[in-house]
Amino acid sequence: MQTWDAVRARRNVRSFEDRPLPDADLQRVLEAGWRAPSASNNQQREFVVVTDRATLAELSRIRQGVAYIAGAAAVVALVYPPAGDERGAAFGAFDQGQATMAMMVTAADLGIGSGHAAVDDDDLARRLLGYPEDRRCDILIALGYPADRPLAPVQHPKRRPLDEVVHRGRW
Amino acid sequence: MQTWDAVRARRNVRSFEDRPLPDADLQRVLEAGWRAPSASNNQQREFVVVTDRATLAELSRIRQGVAYIAGAAAVVALVYPPAGDERGAAFGAFDQGQATMAMMVTAADLGIGSGHAAVDDDDLARRLLGYPEDRRCDILIALGYPADRPLAPVQHPKRRPLDEVVHRGRW
Repeated sequence: MQTWDAVRARRNVRSFEDRPLPDADLQRVLEAGWRAPSASNNQQREFVVVTDRATLAELSRIRQGVAYIAGAAAVVALVYPPAGDERGAAFGAFDQGQATMAMMVTAADLGIGSGHAAVDDDDLARRLLGYPEDRRCDILIALGYPADRPLAPVQHPKRRPLDEVVHRGRW
Repeated sequence: MQTWDAVRARRNVRSFEDRPLPDADLQRVLEAGWRAPSASNNQQREFVVVTDRATLAELSRIRQGVAYIAGAAAVVALVYPPAGDERGAAFGAFDQGQATMAMMVTAADLGIGSGHAAVDDDDLARRLLGYPEDRRCDILIALGYPADRPLAPVQHPKRRPLDEVVHRGRW
């Protein structure tokens, strides 16, 4: 798919077909996250990939409103060392956002929908995903083929008008 | 460009040709950021776009090590309301990361290089960009055609091996 189509086709997907992702496609999505930059190239993020149906069902209890995770073909959990201070936390969250978007656009290019969720229950996430005490997980990205309709460029995203959001030269 | 090529072609660009960006291309980059999701679709980010050479030169003093901003064809400043608490700050930074990556990949697709920088001197940024007291700017994205070599898929990104970063099933 052309890049601009993939960027516009990415949308939050909350229901998935019961169909696995090809290994090569999942690998490409992970590579996209791996390529994303990080502050001073610290590369502190790691990814835990879950495709096991029972574990996905348990992950759907990570917070309210993410029952859809149980039906995903895969979940990528972003695991980081907690930051020592406010500035480090902001850099870490920013870097997770970059990696997440890189993975979501790459997924969209392959016709794979994505829906990301913040983790409320870090203890549950740690128990299910097995990451050590010196790491935490804030974000899960659910992946799968959309059950509602295939991905296609979204013509009218629900956003404030672009002209209101963009200030030219100066606010 | 195909999406996977654009995702792999994005790299930090720190020197730019002295050549303006077509308005339509800059507009597309901004649209990509505008399309990026935000927590509960709060859409709190706004963009200030600078192409004025004198202002770009002043923006290059926003922190150490970003002199390259003076040579950019354009800068997109991400402006946000400060968060009330730690969780809000993390969501805000995450959303900025998503918008930044969407813009950088879209730019790469158009052959436009990008280099983003954290803002150290919010007072200087506010004076130059004119945003109100109830907003702040953490991130600038410099854009322009690379002076060193055109963008092309990076074959060997400087990253730890992908197999070390990815954990299958469980950490």
